[in-house]
Amino acid sequence: MAVSAFRFELLAQRGALRRGRFHTPHGTFETPCFAPVGTYAALKGLTPEQVRATGTELVLANSYHLHVRPGAERIERLGGLHRFMAWDGPILTDSGGYQVFSLGGKVKVDDDGVTFQSVIDGSTHRCTPASVLAFQRQLGPDIAMVLDHCPPGDAAPDVQRDAHERTLRWARQARDVHAGWGGSDRGQAVFGICQGGADPELRAQSASALAALDFDGYAIGGLSVGETKQQMAVALDACVEHLPADRIRYMMGVGMPEDLLAATAAGVDLFDCVIPTRHGRNHTAFGAAGEVLKLRNAQFADDPRPLVEGCACYCCRTYCRAYLRHLAVADEMLAGILLSIHNVHFLQDLMRSIRRRAEGAA
Amino acid sequence: MAVSAFRFELLAQRGALRRGRFHTPHGTFETPCFAPVGTYAALKGLTPEQVRATGTELVLANSYHLHVRPGAERIERLGGLHRFMAWDGPILTDSGGYQVFSLGGKVKVDDDGVTFQSVIDGSTHRCTPASVLAFQRQLGPDIAMVLDHCPPGDAAPDVQRDAHERTLRWARQARDVHAGWGGSDRGQAVFGICQGGADPELRAQSASALAALDFDGYAIGGLSVGETKQQMAVALDACVEHLPADRIRYMMGVGMPEDLLAATAAGVDLFDCVIPTRHGRNHTAFGAAGEVLKLRNAQFADDPRPLVEGCACYCCRTYCRAYLRHLAVADEMLAGILLSIHNVHFLQDLMRSIRRRAEGAA
Repeated sequence: MAVSAFRFELLAQRGALRRGRFHTPHGTFETPCFAPVGTYAALKGLTPEQVRATGTELVLANSYHLHVRPGAERIERLGGLHRFMAWDGPILTDSGGYQVFSLGGKVKVDDDGVTFQSVIDGSTHRCTPASVLAFQRQLGPDIAMVLDHCPPGDAAPDVQRDAHERTLRWARQARDVHAGWGGSDRGQAVFGICQGGADPELRAQSASALAALDFDGYAIGGLSVGETKQQMAVALDACVEHLPADRIRYMMGVGMPEDLLAATAAGVDLFDCVIPTRHGRNHTAFGAAGEVLKLRNAQFADDPRPLVEGCACYCCRTYCRAYLRHLAVADEMLAGILLSIHNVHFLQDLMRSIRRRAEGAA
Repeated sequence: MAVSAFRFELLAQRGALRRGRFHTPHGTFETPCFAPVGTYAALKGLTPEQVRATGTELVLANSYHLHVRPGAERIERLGGLHRFMAWDGPILTDSGGYQVFSLGGKVKVDDDGVTFQSVIDGSTHRCTPASVLAFQRQLGPDIAMVLDHCPPGDAAPDVQRDAHERTLRWARQARDVHAGWGGSDRGQAVFGICQGGADPELRAQSASALAALDFDGYAIGGLSVGETKQQMAVALDACVEHLPADRIRYMMGVGMPEDLLAATAAGVDLFDCVIPTRHGRNHTAFGAAGEVLKLRNAQFADDPRPLVEGCACYCCRTYCRAYLRHLAVADEMLAGILLSIHNVHFLQDLMRSIRRRAEGAA
């Protein structure tokens, strides 16, 4: 039997920290991996060439937003997401569940799915475990995510338990739908999503039950949504302990340097976050130690240094802080572009250093 | 005696159409040449790498805007405009005269200069022929422009005559200031500016008087400000006839394909305009015949073709119209960036074809 196009290779391990490689039909990505987010099939303000130059190997797009516009069917007709957005490397799409629950508007969840109003035009939409996979099959990313129920971080225990159980039922349905299509041999892997809030017992149950479903990879959702760092660490450990060691582990929505360091040390392999590009557009850049530099501040007006000494990103090789401050104050588009390039590159540098440490090289 | 770093070589001529090369301390640019505009020392949304890839050799920046912020002194302290904006090719700055007269606010012109209020903070500023050259000397572009008085296109004949005479007096003062600094051997060329509205007699007087002042090049200002194409052509011919054949001729603020074709055929060598980047940000692109495509239109929603078949720009090599339409509708920054790249590349392609024609090759 042929080796699947989707495969997680565990290359090295140091304590819980893992060094791996994930194989897809559009190439591999090294783990621990950080994936920047292109919500509408574009990283905001950056060309694929610029994204690639940051060291990025995997990008994320949001199937919810793309389903609302321009529509998954349209993207399929135009040749799929890789061709549409001109990214020939691996792509992951989320299921839209997080957006449905977080973007507000009227959301009604039942046992079979979610009904909600579009934040764009008020039209009514329905998501089910099968429909979100169908959208993602039309979009054509390498990795699709199941529909999950992600309650607010401060939801009551019975709401968390309810969401966790619903998420598991939906995961089983999704697994069956995917298997019915021929599974990941048909060119698309599907990852399950662990829920359970900050309760380690729910997290352990969720992870164990998902592990039995034999997904191509496992996401940890519903963290970094307001709980304390300590709560997050405990919940994360409970998930990791019960997830299979030979599958990739993906912590959704995390992108601050200290969280990436903590979560990789706990055994997580993959992350995505809008932070580096959102910070960039808000004229905020990562400094050498991961602190944030607010470029509109007058302190940078005459600063001839790059954002980070020795940083090899296009922005730091090319410009001084005084220029970036000038662009930020003048509200020039280029400010957000250059700071986004730096911020993504900064996180990719951090991931490279974490991978070296996992190899025992640092 | 050493050859000046600034030199216009006339390489070929076909009728009035000229093929040339202008030498500066930061390299040469081929003429006829189109220079895109980076008002605040940045082409809006484009990196210098992206600008260079369009075939652009010369860029323009606005000394008025840069004087207001971040300030010419600051840019000088930081190593000058080339280093500040990371453009190592030739740069031209305008004098700010056009902005002073066109951006509104309280403007008071007298024989010695202009007093005006900043549109940014309401502060009062004063420009004189000497001060605008001093600002530009601090900024450090290869080519600086003299202060001129550019009245509205529909100004009365006596206003036009008055502005023309004042512009000539200021040009003489600017010439003396520049000569006092050691002239263009000190690293910066200065171009005079011909005014006179749509009156061919005033234009001829203006061009003849400026020619006697022996500038490094000659700009034609105050056209494309509302007059008819026929009026523009007559005024342009009157200027060209009286400008020295061995100096570069620069028509300011022109960038529509049909105007570039007409003006190069009349003997103009150099142009600048914000149109390609402004159109791009407004989701408008040049089509194959120079017509404008409005990318938000629904007609492009499923269009799998590039903007222009055979166009070698990054946008056309990489994306279909349907993707660009999607980005435009979603108000993604990347829409304006990609369309700006295409539009600048389109005009550079047009200039290349005009240069080939001037060489007799087409």
